Amino acid sequence: MKFLRILSVVMVTVISHQVFASTEVDPLPSWNDTATKKSIIQYVQQTTTLDSKQFIPVSDRIATFDNDGTLWAEKPVYFQLYFALEQIKEKANQHPEWKTQEPFASVLKGDLEGVKKSGMDGLVKIVMASHTGMSTEEFDASVKAWLKTARHPDSQRPFTEMVYQPMLELLHYLQQNDFKTYIVSGGGVDFMRAWAPEVYGIPKEQILGSSVKTEYKFVNGKPTIMRLPEVNVNNDKAQKPLTIQTYIGKKPVFAAGNSDGDLEMLQWTKSSSYSSFALLIHHTDEKREWAYDKNSSVGHLEKALPLAKKDNWNVVDMKQDWKQIFSD
Amino acid sequence: MKFLRILSVVMVTVISHQVFASTEVDPLPSWNDTATKKSIIQYVQQTTTLDSKQFIPVSDRIATFDNDGTLWAEKPVYFQLYFALEQIKEKANQHPEWKTQEPFASVLKGDLEGVKKSGMDGLVKIVMASHTGMSTEEFDASVKAWLKTARHPDSQRPFTEMVYQPMLELLHYLQQNDFKTYIVSGGGVDFMRAWAPEVYGIPKEQILGSSVKTEYKFVNGKPTIMRLPEVNVNNDKAQKPLTIQTYIGKKPVFAAGNSDGDLEMLQWTKSSSYSSFALLIHHTDEKREWAYDKNSSVGHLEKALPLAKKDNWNVVDMKQDWKQIFSD
Repeated sequence: MKFLRILSVVMVTVISHQVFASTEVDPLPSWNDTATKKSIIQYVQQTTTLDSKQFIPVSDRIATFDNDGTLWAEKPVYFQLYFALEQIKEKANQHPEWKTQEPFASVLKGDLEGVKKSGMDGLVKIVMASHTGMSTEEFDASVKAWLKTARHPDSQRPFTEMVYQPMLELLHYLQQNDFKTYIVSGGGVDFMRAWAPEVYGIPKEQILGSSVKTEYKFVNGKPTIMRLPEVNVNNDKAQKPLTIQTYIGKKPVFAAGNSDGDLEMLQWTKSSSYSSFALLIHHTDEKREWAYDKNSSVGHLEKALPLAKKDNWNVVDMKQDWKQIFSD
Repeated sequence: MKFLRILSVVMVTVISHQVFASTEVDPLPSWNDTATKKSIIQYVQQTTTLDSKQFIPVSDRIATFDNDGTLWAEKPVYFQLYFALEQIKEKANQHPEWKTQEPFASVLKGDLEGVKKSGMDGLVKIVMASHTGMSTEEFDASVKAWLKTARHPDSQRPFTEMVYQPMLELLHYLQQNDFKTYIVSGGGVDFMRAWAPEVYGIPKEQILGSSVKTEYKFVNGKPTIMRLPEVNVNNDKAQKPLTIQTYIGKKPVFAAGNSDGDLEMLQWTKSSSYSSFALLIHHTDEKREWAYDKNSSVGHLEKALPLAKKDNWNVVDMKQDWKQIFSD
């Protein structure tokens, strides 16, 4: 029996090695063979090879990703806003007063310019009216229901198909190399948790984002968590490293973002005592996606771009670096 | 080659099964063979057997544990308080005013009765003076340094040896069965993260607790997270299910606690749509540990005990159920 066991171990070793050798495929097929792609692969190889000076133990392989504009598109406006506007329309018959109250009146008329005029105050009212006042289960169900029929206004594709194929490949490449991948987004955490686990292969507990205050109470005799109309955390800019510290308690070694809202997260990551990697996505492809940076309010990118050069971050030039943007 | 691969798979399967069969050891050797132990083992077997009606997919096997009084002792007072008092003594030479200011004057005289007289206000002052005003790295280092020399006042053992051997076995048993084990404690999250990963085998990102507000800033040219003297979250009672929802986004299927501070977490867990398990530790062993419940302020247990009977929770009677309390 002992002989058989040894034989078996030897054979499994041989076979595994052969399988590995024969399947050494390109982990990032939608990336062009530019310096960015080479840097990513070199980084992953160096930090996961046991006898490398840059080796990082598995428990410290923390990778954090922004979502809007980094993993999926964010134009013409953050997709979560389309969800919010749709919810307002659905709830309108319970709120006859909205017909004359701004910003709701503009929403119901489909007048986006009117909504814009109501400014940040109006936006907060729309978010609170659409995202709070229900249980966490009810909210989750409303996001899932919306996703089934909602379509992007330009591409007419489901929003969950507006994810970037090269970034999906990067996520999976890191996951296969035992990096624990997190989303650290300014988007609503419970909005993302309704679809992102399936789309990105990232479990709910690795999705961090903005949140509203909540309350534990009995509703119809059952323990329930209700969503309250008050911001708890606005997970943007300097809040991102604070959220990472609170939730994970470890400094990331890999981070990706696309706007000034990600600057502190990328900076924090680059201050790791391990070899670390900061990836800044620059939207440069007006034909296949959108081209924008410092003149855009959505995904505003101004301070982070010069800092990337100074601080040795890797910048993705979408037009040059990505063979394909969205999946087919 | 194909034949060899198939043969190898078959052999590995046979051998694995043999190894498993020959190592079917008691997963909970420090538990007496009472109903509580049997219920735990039955629950784990039923929820992890693929063709069982109670089967739970791995991604939903969330288990949450209180810490003080559940995983380690909490008498005569929460161990974190000893750390706080010691820090006050260490920082006293930078604060000459403390010699005449309460509660610090009492701390410096070693007058615990005087400290008690300063009430909750005094306690908050002690916690803030000892836990804030430094970076997260500095705080982590101060906890680790304290643990090296600090001893429990009665047992004279290091505090990290005051953990319950039966609960260590339970944690490992659940981990081996692909339950993701979390700590959800009223204790300070960064205090626990300094030692609990090593002691319990639970990574930092699965440790949730009370926290102070933090600030991201540059100190000596380096990005730093500073701890501010303001409570962020007091992770007790109804806050526990809210923290679980915020951090994990899934309802636990297994929870363990020992006081009324854990009532809502246990109740929330029992409302799962999966088969779920609530474990309430009752401190009944005045010889080997301590015996206390409704008359104790530390680990106050009054409302949860009758609820446990009504709501079909499992109650650990430490005297009856545990063969051994602490590890040797």
